[in-house]
Amino acid sequence: MTRIARYARLVAHKGRGGEVAEHLLAAADGLGGDPGCELYLVNSARSEPDVIWVTELWRSQADLDASLARIRGSKAVAAVMQLVREHELVELDLLGGKGPTAAESR
Amino acid sequence: MTRIARYARLVAHKGRGGEVAEHLLAAADGLGGDPGCELYLVNSARSEPDVIWVTELWRSQADLDASLARIRGSKAVAAVMQLVREHELVELDLLGGKGPTAAESR
Repeated sequence: MTRIARYARLVAHKGRGGEVAEHLLAAADGLGGDPGCELYLVNSARSEPDVIWVTELWRSQADLDASLARIRGSKAVAAVMQLVREHELVELDLLGGKGPTAAESR
Repeated sequence: MTRIARYARLVAHKGRGGEVAEHLLAAADGLGGDPGCELYLVNSARSEPDVIWVTELWRSQADLDASLARIRGSKAVAAVMQLVREHELVELDLLGGKGPTAAESR
């Protein structure tokens, strides 16, 4: 079982970054009880508040896929996408480090 | 006290990404006992193994500054910089989410 790490970068329409962040923080609350989701941290870029970065860490691709299947086509996703003019994913392989679960991934 | 979140992106010279990662994993081990460092996760980009991303979370700017002061001018830093042809920092404000310490940051 291989962890999935990724960053999502969302660029909101001008002035809407705060709303995007609120939606994503609500999504994070919804993930609170999901053992497959190990990190879901919502950040804004220091000098660009309309640029939101999410740090994600999932126990496995299957856990990520299951979570995505649960929200696919939802009103919550549509609401975020309406506020966003650009989005990208940076897909990563976690090598290790200091963190709640990093040691197990080595 | 405000948390400092950031991503560091390092592009290694061709074929040297693994060595860069090894240095950063050693740095993470050195941070194991530093309560100011809450996350230091070393990742490689999924499709570009010479691109290394570090996810960092620090308790405060003072903690980050103290850590940087300890390693400034060190051989370890020089060794990494010799292997790297490009580096950038994405500076973030942590808004919250799911993670070891995210709840406190809201």
